[in-house]
Amino acid sequence: MSGYFITVEGGEGVGKSSNLGFIEAWLREAGKDVVMTREPGGTALGEKIRALLLDADQHSMRVDAELLLMFAARAQHLDDVIKPALAEKKWVVCDRFTDASYAYQGGGRGMELQRIAQLEQWVQGNLRPDLTLLLDMPVQQGLQRAGQRSTPDRFEREQDHFFERVRETYLIRARQEPARFRVIDASPELAQVQQQIAAVLSVLI
Amino acid sequence: MSGYFITVEGGEGVGKSSNLGFIEAWLREAGKDVVMTREPGGTALGEKIRALLLDADQHSMRVDAELLLMFAARAQHLDDVIKPALAEKKWVVCDRFTDASYAYQGGGRGMELQRIAQLEQWVQGNLRPDLTLLLDMPVQQGLQRAGQRSTPDRFEREQDHFFERVRETYLIRARQEPARFRVIDASPELAQVQQQIAAVLSVLI
Repeated sequence: MSGYFITVEGGEGVGKSSNLGFIEAWLREAGKDVVMTREPGGTALGEKIRALLLDADQHSMRVDAELLLMFAARAQHLDDVIKPALAEKKWVVCDRFTDASYAYQGGGRGMELQRIAQLEQWVQGNLRPDLTLLLDMPVQQGLQRAGQRSTPDRFEREQDHFFERVRETYLIRARQEPARFRVIDASPELAQVQQQIAAVLSVLI
Repeated sequence: MSGYFITVEGGEGVGKSSNLGFIEAWLREAGKDVVMTREPGGTALGEKIRALLLDADQHSMRVDAELLLMFAARAQHLDDVIKPALAEKKWVVCDRFTDASYAYQGGGRGMELQRIAQLEQWVQGNLRPDLTLLLDMPVQQGLQRAGQRSTPDRFEREQDHFFERVRETYLIRARQEPARFRVIDASPELAQVQQQIAAVLSVLI
């Protein structure tokens, strides 16, 4: 009928990039036609919006504006990339999606979750991911790993308690929607994380 | 209690710039503390969003994304400029506001007006302009005047029937909200247009 929509979520430094590569390779190995994409971004317009959102100079950005920009990029991404790929029965794997808006703007910045849900409905209608892999690890461990990378962007500059609320919000959402979420313990070494991911994917195929 | 919020609306080439200058001078002459601003834009973030919105290269921008970008700029503008100025009892004069979203994305691009109203409520709550001056003239006359200016932006490249729907939507809104709107016939020469505007402003003071 349609393709399969997987989103990969998690806070800073949880290893999304390495594991996205693993997921892509695993699905291709299983013969799936895979589209890898990311948010915010995924389109030419979306990448320009992403640059605005991550720009550390935009320190006075209001949370309403931030969330509307996220959803502007998402609207373009859905229409140009995600929906067409699903209509062609492809497997779409997206690096962050609307759960990240709940975690970052809701949990992190304290916006009412009900307001996020209104924009989610406005932009997505009833479209939701089929599966969400939440890579979870203690905040300190993630920040330590992320800190070894380049200059921090506008989100990476936040304080520890911001990231604690991000993590907590992700975990609450996972408990609320057990049919859609799979929580992956991302704290052990990569091979063990990927074993967990492979176990989840194997059930789908 | 609070300041006074005036918006100036109208299609292409109706003479907004000249008349905004006149309104500013008239209000200052009357002793008012005036803040002149514009949409999309009005803040550092908003001007970057404006550049994206007007960029003729973004020809594949979806109308949902376009409207969300407009409201992202508006959210920042309200929090950083408009609401603080009104709280200080200033007179805010804004070159285009949410009526333009109804006219351009609704009338021009055919988005359901109810969907625009949802975002208006999400971003603005109950805040609405106190007075809206709609500069109205036949579409052909306006386009002829606008055509004498620089390279057309993404909106100015639209076809005549787009601008006819923009004008019609503005006029319908003016009829629906007669307490807020004043329709100014912008087709005669500037002095006569400004006489009409001065007559409207005189009643306020």
